[in-house]
Amino acid sequence: MTKIGIDAMGGDYAPQAVVSGAIKASGLIGRDSKIVLFGDKVRIEEILSRENCPPDTFEIVPTTEVIGMGDNPSQAFRQKPDSSIAVGFRYLMEQKIDGFASAGSTGAMMVGCMCTVKQIEGIIRPAISSVIPTIDGGEVMLLDVGLNVDCKPEVLCQYGTIGNLYAQGVMHKENPRIALLNIGEEKEKGNQQTKAAYEMMENCHDFNFVGNIEAKHLFSGEVADVVVCDGFVGNTIIKQVEGVYSMALHDGLKNSYFNKLNYETVGGTPVLGINAPVLIGHGCSSAEAIKNMVLQTEKTIKAQLDSKLRERFS
Amino acid sequence: MTKIGIDAMGGDYAPQAVVSGAIKASGLIGRDSKIVLFGDKVRIEEILSRENCPPDTFEIVPTTEVIGMGDNPSQAFRQKPDSSIAVGFRYLMEQKIDGFASAGSTGAMMVGCMCTVKQIEGIIRPAISSVIPTIDGGEVMLLDVGLNVDCKPEVLCQYGTIGNLYAQGVMHKENPRIALLNIGEEKEKGNQQTKAAYEMMENCHDFNFVGNIEAKHLFSGEVADVVVCDGFVGNTIIKQVEGVYSMALHDGLKNSYFNKLNYETVGGTPVLGINAPVLIGHGCSSAEAIKNMVLQTEKTIKAQLDSKLRERFS
Repeated sequence: MTKIGIDAMGGDYAPQAVVSGAIKASGLIGRDSKIVLFGDKVRIEEILSRENCPPDTFEIVPTTEVIGMGDNPSQAFRQKPDSSIAVGFRYLMEQKIDGFASAGSTGAMMVGCMCTVKQIEGIIRPAISSVIPTIDGGEVMLLDVGLNVDCKPEVLCQYGTIGNLYAQGVMHKENPRIALLNIGEEKEKGNQQTKAAYEMMENCHDFNFVGNIEAKHLFSGEVADVVVCDGFVGNTIIKQVEGVYSMALHDGLKNSYFNKLNYETVGGTPVLGINAPVLIGHGCSSAEAIKNMVLQTEKTIKAQLDSKLRERFS
Repeated sequence: MTKIGIDAMGGDYAPQAVVSGAIKASGLIGRDSKIVLFGDKVRIEEILSRENCPPDTFEIVPTTEVIGMGDNPSQAFRQKPDSSIAVGFRYLMEQKIDGFASAGSTGAMMVGCMCTVKQIEGIIRPAISSVIPTIDGGEVMLLDVGLNVDCKPEVLCQYGTIGNLYAQGVMHKENPRIALLNIGEEKEKGNQQTKAAYEMMENCHDFNFVGNIEAKHLFSGEVADVVVCDGFVGNTIIKQVEGVYSMALHDGLKNSYFNKLNYETVGGTPVLGINAPVLIGHGCSSAEAIKNMVLQTEKTIKAQLDSKLRERFS
């Protein structure tokens, strides 16, 4: 049985949106999967009864505290041991669930990752990634998108290895094309960091390195399946995508590609390089976004990425 | 008399597109301005006669050599002293022209800037900038967009001063809002470089610092008139804009904002922080793009940015 842990109290519209999203997802997950909700049991059961959902659809782990968006993440994680996030991580550590996802405090989720689950030995820095639709109907994975904003070249090279395993296991690409985000296609282009990373990636036999990619070709799907970059640059890229999306929305631009840029279809951002599957959802997640977060958590669990990474780096 | 020097041999469609563009511009520049064309006199005059343009519309400085896109910039600049770019910079140094622009080899143009005109004393690193239309009908200036890809915090702070003077002189903004590109709005967000730059910009009295701006708000026009960033990040941002523009074009998306993103309307990229007005155009410049490059060069000359910068940094 695969147990998908979900923080019912995380996100701007929790617990309503989370429970509704979990109900949507419950019909789509595998028969051998079960969703475990962490949160205020009374409120969760109220929503379930209002939505005519049989109470045994989910396992509910009652918790009494909530880490708010305004809380200091590391203090709150310690001082609220019965919060849905802290209890979720405890269950994850005790292997009572196989993965954990929340649309709540990103900071508290990261504290949970680093203090309980911890990073995989041999991995210099974990990453968060974003899987963005491409114009040709596919997807491209971008990492890091904000965790590691002062990135050494060797970390970028490791992200190639991590991204490769993710693209194989979760995106089902046989021989993923791994590229380095740069400001020119030629090997000698870039800043000190990317020039050094190019050298390392070229000589690394973990993945199919296709060289540099410029931001103008990121979303064509023609060059790469996985693009590695510094977290500052990656975060800037996804925020620019967000800006274009809201501009298109505002202008009523109808286009199948813009529609897909909607964060709701993405669901969550997996934290990569740690010892268990953890996903972080968008704070303003709707039920639709939560549904996709649950499904992506299930996929990430089944891909056994963490054990593959442990094997590679052991 | 303001003399606008233009490399007639620079760009993928030179000299035809350059001469045609200069003809278009000649009717739009001030009465006290004159365009000076550097290049193959016979070919230039052929185009002028074909387009029924009176030969005295321009001053023509005949040159016999051309620096190609495949040439090594610094070698070519030395070994082709009678190239349109080398002669143009000689004229600029001798003050026979007041500014110089080319859509040819960016590398050779930069060699010309650094070896002849030279950077202004007190300026740590020159920058190139991009002026991008905003959704509200205005413009935002982004610098650096590729010259300085390993940027120290103090360089970012200086870019605030340079951008401020440019926005006042060329964009005619009275009290330009200067922002720092970052991955969060709060002061404490960012990488080591932006955190340090924030401190410096906050304490600098040269300009109206409005704090951090995230990439999602770059083109709304609501936050800033000038945005400073590392050249690697800035180059990535404009290439992503280029990617969105070509995607919209490909999909036939009709939208007044996307139409304005066309590089043709921008014309050229001024090199900022050097002792004379120099602009670099897009390699694939059409006559329309050249027209705008000429007009922007005239505006940059008239703004006397270099003397204002010398004054500030003396």
